[in-house]
Order: sequence, then structure tokens, then C-alpha cells
Amino acid sequence: MLEDKNQERTALEQLGEFGLIDHLTQNFAISRKSTLKGIGDDAAVLDFKDKKTIVTTDMLIEGVHFDLSYMPLKHLGYKAVMANLSDVYAMNATATQIAVSVAVSNRFPLEALEELYAGIALACQIFKIDLIGGDTTSSTTGMLISITALGEADEAEIVYRSGAKPNDLLVVSGDIGGAYMGLQVLEREKEVFKVNPNTQPDLSPYSYIVERQLKPEARKDIVELLKKLEVQPTAMIDVSDGLSSEILHLCKNSAVGCNLFEEKIPLDPTVISACEEFKMDSTLVALSGGEDYELLFTIDQKDFDKIKGNPNMTIIGHMTEESEGAHLVTRGNTKIPLTAQGWNSFGKE
Amino acid sequence: MLEDKNQERTALEQLGEFGLIDHLTQNFAISRKSTLKGIGDDAAVLDFKDKKTIVTTDMLIEGVHFDLSYMPLKHLGYKAVMANLSDVYAMNATATQIAVSVAVSNRFPLEALEELYAGIALACQIFKIDLIGGDTTSSTTGMLISITALGEADEAEIVYRSGAKPNDLLVVSGDIGGAYMGLQVLEREKEVFKVNPNTQPDLSPYSYIVERQLKPEARKDIVELLKKLEVQPTAMIDVSDGLSSEILHLCKNSAVGCNLFEEKIPLDPTVISACEEFKMDSTLVALSGGEDYELLFTIDQKDFDKIKGNPNMTIIGHMTEESEGAHLVTRGNTKIPLTAQGWNSFGKE
Repeated sequence: MLEDKNQERTALEQLGEFGLIDHLTQNFAISRKSTLKGIGDDAAVLDFKDKKTIVTTDMLIEGVHFDLSYMPLKHLGYKAVMANLSDVYAMNATATQIAVSVAVSNRFPLEALEELYAGIALACQIFKIDLIGGDTTSSTTGMLISITALGEADEAEIVYRSGAKPNDLLVVSGDIGGAYMGLQVLEREKEVFKVNPNTQPDLSPYSYIVERQLKPEARKDIVELLKKLEVQPTAMIDVSDGLSSEILHLCKNSAVGCNLFEEKIPLDPTVISACEEFKMDSTLVALSGGEDYELLFTIDQKDFDKIKGNPNMTIIGHMTEESEGAHLVTRGNTKIPLTAQGWNSFGKE
Repeated sequence: MLEDKNQERTALEQLGEFGLIDHLTQNFAISRKSTLKGIGDDAAVLDFKDKKTIVTTDMLIEGVHFDLSYMPLKHLGYKAVMANLSDVYAMNATATQIAVSVAVSNRFPLEALEELYAGIALACQIFKIDLIGGDTTSSTTGMLISITALGEADEAEIVYRSGAKPNDLLVVSGDIGGAYMGLQVLEREKEVFKVNPNTQPDLSPYSYIVERQLKPEARKDIVELLKKLEVQPTAMIDVSDGLSSEILHLCKNSAVGCNLFEEKIPLDPTVISACEEFKMDSTLVALSGGEDYELLFTIDQKDFDKIKGNPNMTIIGHMTEESEGAHLVTRGNTKIPLTAQGWNSFGKE
């Protein structure tokens, strides 16, 4: 539906494996001082000096994690990088380098990989990340992307999932549920397109949530903002699998309970109207939706004044003693136990 | 053929994504001082202090890089780690951590993943590597493994591909071509098995080359030996794609030429006899075979006495001025230009 059928097609075997890597990575410049050697040897060499090294890795598979019938390849490249950077920022660290491995079947021409790498390059440019390695190979079916992101942080800055204490405030950046509702819109348009390929979908009323799905932004700005506000979170995680699942990770790792207030969950008006249209419960979407790549963190109550009223973050609850459990406090003031209903690629838990 | 059809089968969806990762990684202990935080947060945290950080990544895909009809899963896990560690050793560095992402279709039961992780665990134990992260997800078809390996080295120890000088000696560890000939044997037995599934293959005459294919060992010992001998290679690469392709990488990166002497290429007697049996030229197999995971390096002539007669390494040639080009000097003293005929997953270059 968004795919251009008339594009140029250059078969990948014309370049060979080394020629292909060289071609795709030729326009990536090295900008980080910590990158001593990027692409072009058996391994990259980095120098984080007295900082700690942060490492995270993630694999995305066509047909499982993305659908190329509505995900343009440039967006896919950008989003794949965001998903990894988000994990680095969730450590309260600075993301610095990525290594990218891509496997594609012969249905993809060179131009498709160029689009994918254009998205990766844009992400690297905006977030000041060096591409330092990777691998390009063939697959038997579809496209696979595996990215490892590296970062750096002073030891004292690093925030784990395990530091939350009872009475800490629970805070989330941005708003939640948009990426999931954007996916619903795109899935619906795909079905419409299957029935009538001449339909031109009007996605403009949904532009915010579609963009949340197709072009999420990792919250580097929140990490920087917290430093500026002199707020050191006690625990942090990124919201990739839905709010509920992430809160339970914080609770489990920190051995605390939690009260999450339904009325405090930040929802964009477009999310609310899309939920009405799709007859979905917006709270459930926020709790279970996933792919928002916002940051969820806890702060000591003494830091309340520093973040109060800040439009970039919302206090949505507070941590409790572990024995009290993790609950959603509804608008009707009922307490419902939180359960992990985040997205699970192997099926429902 | 080597697959046990009567194995227990536990469906992956019974555990869910987080349960699965916990289950598979529960027996991995952290042994490196540089690992501050391994699995269990958004990212791992490492501390290489005043050493440089080495990073390399590699992706293996069923049907492209491995064939489960003769590759037992435990061996596959081990080999996948070796392929990555080999790249770290090729920097003359110490391998310290790996992150492993695995995607499998629902044809694989839990027990298959346990076997794969048993091989990964064995590699980690023998090579003193910490598993610090990763991802387990579902695929639409087959099995995919993406590994990122990390290492550390003092800056002065690191050996790039680019340091070879004219008149440096060209040295290779171990012997070459075994992994490729082992693959030929296994491929032949697979065809025999297809015709008559009751055949029991007798692989004992081929045990060395089959083991080279199924259970290669990254040459950590060579890096340690070179340190002990006080030999700092001027350039180094690992032999994953065949000798010819790797020599050309050294030549290109170092801007030198090379004379490789056919009669010096170390071949195991089993490789020679298998080549006779398969009517293949053993020199061509060594030049183009791949997957040997030996180290290929250049040393200054002044270091000749330090390695002379060492059974772990063979001097196979010397570097020349770039203008002289890269050549194979045959037994008949003819000079043939070296061409990259290494394995290319997108087809022949």
C-alpha cells in the first residue's frame, strides 16, 4: 500500500557481500571521540575512558515485529535504532555507538537496503551515534535486523530497575498508547487496501498516532532534562511492552509494590478518540499496548518540586511496600491487581 | 540424521518471553570483573577501566549459514560463539562478554533451545566469557542467531588489519581447509541419508575434519602464545572466509602486496585425503574454503626466531610492495594473482 512498485531494482548479488557493506555504510561518518575504530576490521575499538560501558541488543523480524506493507523501510531503519537507543537511555546513559546486522531474502533489491540504511543514518545523525559495525547477509525469507547499541555513563549516574523504594513517585515521560493505536489504524487500512487496492487512505486524522507507530523517538531529551533538573531517578525502564509489564518489572526488581492511578495516565486526545472509534478501553491500551519508547521511572519524593508541572513528564502513581502488591487504582477508586499483558511474540502468557 | 526424533517437546508459548529468557540463562554465572551488570536490566553495564573496548557482531541463519540436519544444536551454539570470539582474538584482544539474540519458529520446542544454550554455556565456560544479554523471540521460519562479542585490550596490544609492511612474514595458525572438507562429508552423508534413511554413516575416517566443521575452536591460545613469545603481530585477521579473501583484506587495508607459497599452506593429512576422494584441489579448498577460524597475521622479520619451528603456526609467505600485487606462488614456481573466492551468502562475486 505504501510500497512503490516502480522503484529501480539492483540485485544484491551484483555487489557481493563486502561490496554491499561498503556501499551501504560509505556515508556514515564517525563523530564520537570514544570510537577509535569503526567499520572495517575484525571488530570495532572503543575507548570509554573512566566511564562505564552500556550494552544492549535487540532483534526485529519481518512478519513478527514489523509489516512492510505499511512500514516504509526508511522508517523501519529509524525505528529499529530507536528501540535500541531507548534501552540505553533507560539506564540514564548516553548512547554512543550501534552495530547493525541485516539479513534479507533476494526479494529485496539494493534500493530497499539503501532506504533501510537511510533511516539508520538519519537516526545516527540526529542522536549523534556512530555506526561501528555489522553484518549483511542473505536470509531464506524476509528481512531481519539485529542491532546492538552501546553507551557510556559515570557509575554514579547509572539507573537500574532495582533502586525504587516505597513512597517513591512513579513518573512517565510523554504519553502512552499512541503507538498501539497507530498500529490499529494501519492494520485496518491494510485490510481495506486488500479489498480495494485503489483506495487512498486518509490518515490525516490519525497522523499523531501513526507517527508514534512508524517514527517513535527515543527519549534522549528526558535523560538530558533530568540531569538539568538535577533529578537522579531511583529506578528506570523504557516502555516498550506496555505500562503494566514495565511497572511489574520495576516492582519485581526493586522488591516494592505500586499504586498506579488510572486518571493520571497521560493519553493524547487522538488516542482517546481512536479508542472510542475502535471500541477499545484506553486504559487497557495504555497498560498493554507497547512500542511507545517512553521512559518510566521512580524518583524520591524530595525531588517532587523539581519536576512538578513539567509538561514532559507525568506523575502516575507511587511505590509501596512489596507486601501491598502492584495495583491499578481506577477512576472509581477500585484497586485492581496489575498483570503483565505486554506483547509476547510467543503468544499470550 | 543426527536428530533425535523421540525427544521431549515443551512448547515455547508455555513459558512466555520473559520466562523463557530466565529459564535459558539461569545457569550462566558471571565470572569477569568487568561485568558490573549482566542480564536483567534494560542494558548490561561493563567496566573496562583503562582498557579499550572491542565490539564485534555476527548473524547466523538456518538454511544459509547452518543446516540442522547434520549440525546438532549444542554444536551450533558453541560454534556461533566461536565465530564471534574469533573476531575479538583477531584484534589480539581478550574476549570477555557476549550478548545472544535467538529467534525460532514454533517448530522448535523448549528442549531444542536448551540444547543450543548448553553449547553457548560450554563455550562461555571454556573461554571464560560472561553472557550479559540478549533477546529471545519468535521467527516465521527457522532459527536465527545474532551474537555480539565484547573484549578488552591495552591500546598498544591491539592489532588491526592495516599494519602490515613489505617484507613482513605472513603466518597462519593451525591448518586450513578442514572445516570446508568436513562440510563436504556431511553434505554427502545427508544425500545418502535422504535416499536410505536406515544408513548409519561411518564418519570415523573423517572425524578430524567433521569436528573442524562442527566444533571449531577460536584461537585464544594463539593470542596468549604470541604474548608469551613477545611477538606483536603487525596486522591480523581471522580466517572465516578462506585464506585468499583474508590475505586480500590484509593487503588492501595495509596497502601492501603478498607472495603466498602454495607448498607452505598447512593442510592436515585428512584434508588431503578427503580432497583426493572428492576430486578437489586442496590448495583451492584452503584458499576458498572458509570457517577454519584460524588466525592469519603478519610479523616483522626480526621476530622470525621467536616463532621458528613452533608447531602452532606456519610461515606461508611474505608481504611485498603494493605495486607487486598479491600472488600465489605455486609448487611449480608460477605466480598466480590471488582472487577473493571466499564464501558469499549472496552468491558468487
